[in-house]
Formats: sequence, structure tokens, C-alpha cells
Amino acid sequence: MALKNRIGNIFSLTSFGESHGPAIGGVIDGMPAGVKIDFEQLKHEMARRRPGQGSVTSSRKELDEVEFLSGIMDGVTLGTPIGFIIRNKDQRPEDYEQLKNVYRPSHADYTFQAKYGLRDYRGGGRASARETAARMVAGALAKQVLEKMDITISAQSTVNVAEVPQGDTCGGVVQCVVSGVPVGLGEPVFGKLSAQLAGAMMSIPAAKGFEIGLGFDFVNHFGSEVLDKFIFKEGRITTSTNFSGGIQGGISNGSDICFKVAFKPVATLMQEVEGIDHDGNTVVIKPKGRHDSCVVPRAIPIVEAMAAIVILDNVLINRASRL
Amino acid sequence: MALKNRIGNIFSLTSFGESHGPAIGGVIDGMPAGVKIDFEQLKHEMARRRPGQGSVTSSRKELDEVEFLSGIMDGVTLGTPIGFIIRNKDQRPEDYEQLKNVYRPSHADYTFQAKYGLRDYRGGGRASARETAARMVAGALAKQVLEKMDITISAQSTVNVAEVPQGDTCGGVVQCVVSGVPVGLGEPVFGKLSAQLAGAMMSIPAAKGFEIGLGFDFVNHFGSEVLDKFIFKEGRITTSTNFSGGIQGGISNGSDICFKVAFKPVATLMQEVEGIDHDGNTVVIKPKGRHDSCVVPRAIPIVEAMAAIVILDNVLINRASRL
Amino acid sequence: MALKNRIGNIFSLTSFGESHGPAIGGVIDGMPAGVKIDFEQLKHEMARRRPGQGSVTSSRKELDEVEFLSGIMDGVTLGTPIGFIIRNKDQRPEDYEQLKNVYRPSHADYTFQAKYGLRDYRGGGRASARETAARMVAGALAKQVLEKMDITISAQSTVNVAEVPQGDTCGGVVQCVVSGVPVGLGEPVFGKLSAQLAGAMMSIPAAKGFEIGLGFDFVNHFGSEVLDKFIFKEGRITTSTNFSGGIQGGISNGSDICFKVAFKPVATLMQEVEGIDHDGNTVVIKPKGRHDSCVVPRAIPIVEAMAAIVILDNVLINRASRL
Amino acid sequence: MALKNRIGNIFSLTSFGESHGPAIGGVIDGMPAGVKIDFEQLKHEMARRRPGQGSVTSSRKELDEVEFLSGIMDGVTLGTPIGFIIRNKDQRPEDYEQLKNVYRPSHADYTFQAKYGLRDYRGGGRASARETAARMVAGALAKQVLEKMDITISAQSTVNVAEVPQGDTCGGVVQCVVSGVPVGLGEPVFGKLSAQLAGAMMSIPAAKGFEIGLGFDFVNHFGSEVLDKFIFKEGRITTSTNFSGGIQGGISNGSDICFKVAFKPVATLMQEVEGIDHDGNTVVIKPKGRHDSCVVPRAIPIVEAMAAIVILDNVLINRASRL
Repeated sequence: MALKNRIGNIFSLTSFGESHGPAIGGVIDGMPAGVKIDFEQLKHEMARRRPGQGSVTSSRKELDEVEFLSGIMDGVTLGTPIGFIIRNKDQRPEDYEQLKNVYRPSHADYTFQAKYGLRDYRGGGRASARETAARMVAGALAKQVLEKMDITISAQSTVNVAEVPQGDTCGGVVQCVVSGVPVGLGEPVFGKLSAQLAGAMMSIPAAKGFEIGLGFDFVNHFGSEVLDKFIFKEGRITTSTNFSGGIQGGISNGSDICFKVAFKPVATLMQEVEGIDHDGNTVVIKPKGRHDSCVVPRAIPIVEAMAAIVILDNVLINRASRL
Repeated sequence: MALKNRIGNIFSLTSFGESHGPAIGGVIDGMPAGVKIDFEQLKHEMARRRPGQGSVTSSRKELDEVEFLSGIMDGVTLGTPIGFIIRNKDQRPEDYEQLKNVYRPSHADYTFQAKYGLRDYRGGGRASARETAARMVAGALAKQVLEKMDITISAQSTVNVAEVPQGDTCGGVVQCVVSGVPVGLGEPVFGKLSAQLAGAMMSIPAAKGFEIGLGFDFVNHFGSEVLDKFIFKEGRITTSTNFSGGIQGGISNGSDICFKVAFKPVATLMQEVEGIDHDGNTVVIKPKGRHDSCVVPRAIPIVEAMAAIVILDNVLINRASRL
Repeated sequence: MALKNRIGNIFSLTSFGESHGPAIGGVIDGMPAGVKIDFEQLKHEMARRRPGQGSVTSSRKELDEVEFLSGIMDGVTLGTPIGFIIRNKDQRPEDYEQLKNVYRPSHADYTFQAKYGLRDYRGGGRASARETAARMVAGALAKQVLEKMDITISAQSTVNVAEVPQGDTCGGVVQCVVSGVPVGLGEPVFGKLSAQLAGAMMSIPAAKGFEIGLGFDFVNHFGSEVLDKFIFKEGRITTSTNFSGGIQGGISNGSDICFKVAFKPVATLMQEVEGIDHDGNTVVIKPKGRHDSCVVPRAIPIVEAMAAIVILDNVLINRASRL
Repeated sequence: MALKNRIGNIFSLTSFGESHGPAIGGVIDGMPAGVKIDFEQLKHEMARRRPGQGSVTSSRKELDEVEFLSGIMDGVTLGTPIGFIIRNKDQRPEDYEQLKNVYRPSHADYTFQAKYGLRDYRGGGRASARETAARMVAGALAKQVLEKMDITISAQSTVNVAEVPQGDTCGGVVQCVVSGVPVGLGEPVFGKLSAQLAGAMMSIPAAKGFEIGLGFDFVNHFGSEVLDKFIFKEGRITTSTNFSGGIQGGISNGSDICFKVAFKPVATLMQEVEGIDHDGNTVVIKPKGRHDSCVVPRAIPIVEAMAAIVILDNVLINRASRL
């Protein structure tokens, strides 16, 4: 279930925060009680998302220090909601003053303004990728629960970022594998695991495509070529191939869940581009601030985080499947 | 919001029904009051999904007669829930007796059995594409509301179905365009319109991929090549290109919403295939019954129906965006 | 969670149906798989709600034959949604023709008309107590699951119905006890078990009050008089009194859950009353049709049904409370 | 819709926070854009809930300084989620050390421990009335929106607090009137306005009863005595009496919405009481800390806050009732 700024049913994240406001944060509700949190591992996860760690990413120094405000006592989860905030530091609102009345191409400036009648124009406001730091926190905690169940999540990029011309940007594809998933996760017909994953992934900023297993490549094959034949191995039923990507009929089949997410190129170029103001006049926008030239390196941990949120939620929901 | 067999927030469908049970059906909740229903148009929509209309689709004669049980009086919606059923006819359960203890490859037999401990093995049960008839009803009604708002939805297939060898199957891609969408639909950050569409489409049986605008092709372009430049035209702001597919930051921008859905080949072949029984023994499954060789022609109206459900729900939610 | 015509989170009922339409019914989603249904017991429960069984209740012969359409195979639940309908029989729409443009006092005629712009005026339409038959079905199935867990629900009336003057009506109080509830049900702070029960009970037609434990009588006691002292008995912690009604801090404490629901008198009198038409003219309404003089005898099984729905939902949700 | 720590559908509050943790707070999602916030009025509302303002309430000096972190720019709502925190000050955890392994009578100590396997024992943790400060924030903002629509909410107490013996406590009843409510709010059959209000009120700590209109007193009257007769007055339909409390069939009828909430006596006495430890041993608990002798004075603004949340949510939902 995703409704406005909330995702998840039993285990859920409700997030908040604009890029250049005082803080971002969220509430993680439904975290099972009794989970010992590894804060060092959390920091490590947060650092993976931080800009400025590669040649193609922004040099903004976001420290992403997470302050937990509730739901954890002596490092152990209480079963109550976990509120947390991350202060926004290193803000340079003056970088954005020129954008106050301007809609940048392929940004959310215009749509936010049209929907709400006003917007926080500083650094993208709510539409900034800054909000994904809150996803990271929930995802990192979910991951720690999943690891205790021997479920692991690992994503990697397929983009070649070395070739981006200076001042331009690129997109890319992140592929993700979830291993150790028990058979039976997913809630047909509208809460199919593949549908939930798709919805979660497509909610990530700049995500424009999702596919599972062979995905769009299925169209190039006949049915007889891509059936996942069952085999009996090590005392249990499995398949010899995994064209389906680990999900059949919307329910996990015990094989690795394999999916890909496509991201469009970063819309903020470090070169002059044309925007429009709200009166319809063309405006030349000069590059300012600090921006990634490719979102994909930072998208990798975010994809993992969203996968962890969805999988943990479904592990908990699935406890109610049988008497 | 999708939770088990429910999709939608303000306008929602809760569906039920196994392929070879007495009936399928659903409850449409949140349909605005005062909508005059065109039942002929509904029949026309239902007929589009019916098998047996093309050389590549099943010859099963599903009449799909929808019986409305509530929520409509004198042809006008009351604002109360619309209950409806479609009787299952032309059932041949004996076709499926051989499958009672067998898991067919790339079907949901095994995952349903593993999740619930039992399953309706006749014709796929709940996992059958039969359930999509209920989606068609909700979608057809939603479409009629949207048409009054000059929002139209049109999908088409890109598969070449002529080439499928006799007894084999194929998948394909359905592309869909939603025109006339007002600026402002979609609820960031988790209820982005693109995320909701992805979740809805990926809940369709056999759907394995979703992309919006350029989608996966974005990876082949630099940012400077795929910015949707704003222009001022006929008194309003629009864009000269539509690489984004009509959605920016998860909110519709007034351009056509363009997306594609990939479907895997039909998993039921009209040739012998190998399955497995629950003891792990390999079983040869002989072709029986009536099955499509390509799901895509029938998927076209289903994609439209799901789009209509999502768009109408968001039209209604968006009424609350401003004071 | 209650949203329009849906109640429940993991175990939920979505209901539909007008009093004099073709049928009422619903979808029960989230019923655990593997539950053997006792249809005789279901019939018995349905009969308890049926009008015409006492001197003070309507003589309308509703047979309330439930037709299950899905989710059950060979008498066992599949884990998939259970669709069901109950045909409306013995309809006499001509009884209601005089009410087409009239708003009866203390009925929902006016509010439905004002909210939706039109209404089904025949027999109360969606506002009729007829819709509670769908609640009975879901409640009866939930009860059967709860009984396997040794949780039992029993309600009784405190009204003295013998004294109602001929042609007049009365209300009453139903008190309900849920026994065998495990410690730990309820989801603070907004999903407290007492809050969920209150919301469920107050959704029953004519319900106007809810209290748990001492309820409103708490105001007549000092704190020192109404503390539920803990005792250690038969190897476990319990309390010597139960002023709280079995719930502390919104979570069940293992004692009996005891609550009461107040119902107003039936608003349809068997004597002339004054209504108003939509132009504001006073209209004399003559008694017609068949109506209960007291809703309470029929409310008893409905209170039990709603309790069963809430308790089962919380049993399932609570499975996710701990790692 | 209430699910764990979230209440509301379109306008919702997700809250977090333990009494003696670093902070409490919440996320208000779905606040319409363009609302100018009056922060002075908010402070005034917060002060009404603060302990220590009367002879019968706790002397703890909670300053309840609300820090808004998002969703508001230049004092105007953005339509994005409003995150806020209130730091916990004046903590005296040492007051609670003796309670670490003890369950106090009529508190939530035992039920939280039993549900989650551990608990924050300091000051009631999540079960403390401290969490209601977050409700106040959401309620105060909702009130400001409602006031622009000429909807006002006013509660008062009916308890006589002067008579409580020194060291004992009392409960009481809060009655609340919502004026200016338009006809048509409420979403039958499970989202009836009365049901939503009941669920919201019963989620307040120590709430044990709810009634609307005559409530439990309906049982003392015949139907003919308590019909709300329609009259035509000042160009519109209204009623001459308001026994129903402003809601018919779950939908507001334009009259004042009048309801009452019963609260049990504060469970923490300023005298010795007997508790039990987790081994079953009786433990004498000595009074420490600062506590209200009657919760009702502070409950008044909380009842108003919860009413505001429910009413605003329903105002927004109702925008979708008609085409």
C-alpha cells in the first residue's frame, strides 16, 4: 500500500522533508519488537547513498546523521513507531534564488506548482532526491531484520559512467537480486510481489522503468524457450532456470528475485539550459550548485532499501496466510 | 493503494473469483454519484477482453454477462458500492483433473500451493486471467467517468503474433496513451502517478515489465538529449517533446501519459511439457482445454482498464490537494 | 481500518447492497487458508439476525440464503477472497413509492440525498439494516476461526421489550463478552483494540453509544476504587477485578473483553409521523411495510459479528508484533 | 482509517514517541496546500493541553515547543507532509527505575510487555498521555483549516474535580460540539462519521466510553419521543430537535454534532498501591513523579483535536462524493 508519503502495510514508512528545509525524516511503523539494531551498519548504508563519493556524483557533503527519537531502547526495537530525523546541512539557498519563478525542463517545478499552487523552489523541495535518505533509514533497518532470516539484497549498476561529456549527465539501469526469499511472499491479485516491487521502485526519483526476470526481453522468445522447468534438488522443489525472476503468479517461488530499474539522466545539467517562467517567457538557466552527473551510483543502495521495505512487509503479512 | 484483492484509495475495486468456481466479481467502492452508465459501451468493453476473438486467442466462449447488484438505480450511480458478478460458464473441470497434484512450469500452481497449503487447481483458480474480467468492469465504468472529463485511454499492441509456431506461444508489449489528463495528478513521494501505474500494470497476469516515456531507452541518451523543453502554446505551458511520458516528479504535466507493459509468453502450451508433482516426480503434461497462444490482444483492454482505475482514483484524490 | 464500505486490515470485509436491489453481499479478503467451514453453523448465525422471529421484530421473511462464489473449495478456505451474495426476496417496492420525495424523521433519507444528490428511496436503500446480513456472513466465518483458538463471543440484550406501546418503538443496550482472548491484541496508539471495537460497533445502524468495562460509570468512582489489582493465579498473571473491560492501554490483557453498545429506538413507527419533502413541505407519512419495533434482538448477533471481525483481524495483525 | 500509529485517510497523522525518549512528533500528510498557519494560535492550543495549569493536573512543566521540519514555507502549507517534533524536557527517569520490572495496576505496563516482549518502562513509554501532544499539533492545524470553512469545535468538561480526596484521582466526561458542519460528511457503511469519531475518541488514553446525541439515554425513550422532526427554516431543511447529535445514517445532517467521551480516573495515584512483578510477586509501589489527579481538563483540547482531524479528513473525502 502506498498512499501519498506512506509505503507499506504492516511494516511501513511515512516520510517527510524538503531538500533545504530544517530536516527530513520519517516514521517507521510496524517494526517488530526485539530487533537489536546495528548502528554501525546503518551508518555504512547511509554513507553509500551520500553524494560526493564518486567522480560522477555531487560534491555536496551531506553527513546524513540520523537521530532516532523513539521506538528503540538500549539499541533494541520496542515495537512502537520509530521516529527519526536527519538535519539538512550545508545548505546554500542562494544557489536557488534565480529559480524562484522558473520551471526547469524535466524537473518537477512546474507540476508541483500546478498541483499545489505553490512550491518550495529551493533545491527541488520535496521533489529532491534528498528525500531518499529517509528511505535509506527504513531500508537499512528492514535489511537487518531480513538478514536474521537469511534474506539478502544486493544491487549493482550496469551503466558505463565514464563516458559522460563534461557538463552533461546520464541515466542507467540498476539490477537487484534478493536471495534467500522463502516461497510464498506476495498477496495476489493486486498486491502481487512483482506489483509491489514495481510500485516501490517507480517511486524512486528519476525511475522510469521496471522489469522482472527477462522483463521486456520476454517478447523476443516463444513460450517453449522460457518456461522455468521444475527440478527436485536437495530435498526441495526448485527450477533449473529463472526467467521469471523468482516470482510466479505474484508470489515468490524461492528462487532469487531478480529485477531491474531504469533511471533517466539527471535533469540538472552543469551547462546552460532553457526553462520557462510562469508567464510563459523563456529563461536561460545557468548552472549553479552541486549535482550528480549520474544518479545511478547513489540509486543502488536506494533500490536495495526499497526492496528491503517491500520484502519485510510481505514477510510479516504472509504470517497471516494460513490458520 | 493495493492491498491483497483491493486496488485504489477513494475509487477502489475489490475483486474475487476463481476461474472455475460459480462466479467472479467485485465491489467498486467510491464511484461518484450521479454518473449515467452506458451499459452498451460496457458490453463492448467486456467483449474486447473475451477470448476467442482472434486466431491466437482461446476459443473458450466466455459471455461475460455482468450482473450489477447494487449501487446503480435507473442506470445512474448512487455513490454507494457497486457489487457485480459474472457467472462462470462453459466450465470443463474434467480438463484439469490431471493437474490436481501437478505443478505446471511457469504457472502459479506451486507458489499458491506453497503459500496457502492448498489451491484450486481447476484452470488456474485465482491465478487465472479469468479474474481480469472484474478489472474490466471497474475499468469500463471508470472510463465512462473519465470521458465526461475528456480524458481518453487507448492502448495497442506491438507484438507480431502471426509468427508463433503451431502449439507454441508468445508474449508482447502493450503501449498505452492517456490523453486529456489535467496537470496535477499523482501523490508524491510514494503515490507518484508513475508508481501507481506501474503497480497496477504489474498486477496484471503475465506482466513482467513497465516503462514510462523513454523508459529503459533513457540509458542510451545523455541528459541534454532528452530534456522536455517547455514552450508556451495556446495560452498555456506545455513541452515540445514528451520523453518523460507525461509525468514529472510523479505528477502529470498535462501531456499525454505514455507507458508500455511487457507480457511474457502464455505459459500454457498446446504441446507436451514437463511438470513436477508435489513429491518431486517429473510429470508429462498433455495439452488440453482452450488457451490463448498470445495474451497480448486480450491484454490491451485490461491495460486500459487498469489505467482508468488509477487515473480516476487520482482525479478524485487530487480534489483535496488545495484548500 | 475502516474506509467507506470496507472494514479490517489483514482480515477485511467489503460489503455492498441496497435493501430493495437485486442482492446484497460482500468480499471477505484475508481469510486464512485451510479453515474448514461449518455451513450449518453459518445458517444458524444468519437465522439469528433474520427479522420476524420475535413479537417485536419485523415479519418480513428474509431467508438470507448465502451463496458463496469463491474462496472456498470442498468446504475449505483457499486463502483467496470469498465473494458472496444474498438475494433480496419478498420485496414490496410499492410500499415505498410514497417516500420517493419525502425525508422521514431520524432516517438517513435526507443525508443520503444531500450527500450524493440522489438516493435509493426503497426501504432505506443502502442505509437499511438489511446491509448487516453481509456483516453476519463475515462475522460467522471469523467466529469459526476464533473458536478454533478457543476465543468465544457472546452478546445479550438488556432492554425490556415487553413494554413498548403498540405502534411505537424502543431502543436498548447490547452487552458483549469476548472470552479467551490472548494477551497482546490491539495496535496502539490509533488502532487500540477499544478504538477499533468502538468504530466497528458504531458503524452498526442505530448505534449511538459504546462503552468498555465500567465505561461512563467510571465517572462515579475514584481511582482507588477501580484499579484492577494484579494477582498471580494458575501460573499466570491476571486481575482480581475487570473494571477495565479486558483492555489496558489499547491492548487486551487476557481477561474477558466486556463492552456495551447503545441503540436508539427504531425510527420507523407503525403510526403516522410527519416528514418533509425536498421543497420543504410537511408531509404526513402513513405506516406501511414491515418493521421491527425494537432493533435490539436482531442487533445481538450483529454485535457479535462485528466483534469477531475485529478480533480475528487483530489476531492476525498481532502475529507481526515480534521478530 | 486507523492503522497502528496512523489515523486518517486523505488528511492523516502518523505519530511517534515515548514519554521519556528524546522527542515525540509526527507526520501530517494530506494537509491541503495554501493554508496560512497561525503559529500563535497553535501555541495557544498546545498550552491548553500542557500539565500543571490547574490544581488537579500534573506540575510537570512541559513546554511543548513544536519544531516544524517540513511542509510549510513562509508560514504557508505546501501540500507536502508536515514533519514535526517536540523535544522531551524536564525528564526524571530516576523516578521510574523502581518500575522497571513492575506492572502497575490499570496501566499498560503488563500488556505492552506481553505484546512486544519488552517495553520502555520510563513514564509509561508509548502508553503515556505524552503522545497526545502530537495529536494536538495535527488537530490545531486541522482546526485552522476548518475555521476558514466556518466549522468550529468546542468541548467542555462535566466533571466536578473539586471533590477528589488528596492522593486519589477521578475520571470524567468531556462533551464536544462541532458547529457549522456541512450536510454530507461521513462515508457509510463502515466509515460512518459517528463510527470514525468513536474510533478516534476511544484512541485517546483513558477513554472508556463514547456516545452521540442522546447516546445511552436513548434506551429510556420510545421512538415517538425522540424523532428529530424536520422543519424548513431560513431557506433550508433542518430539525427542530437534535436527539441524533447531528448525524443520521452515519452522515452529518447540518445540525451541531454533539458527542460525549468518558474517561476513567487517572491510574497513577499519589498513594501506595500494589503492583506485581513479572515473576508474580506482589510489589508495593510508592508514589513518585508528577501526575494529574484528573485527566479531564487536559482531555478537553485533545477531544477537540481528534474531532478536528476526523472532520477535516471527511471534508476532503467528501469532495469525491459526486461527479
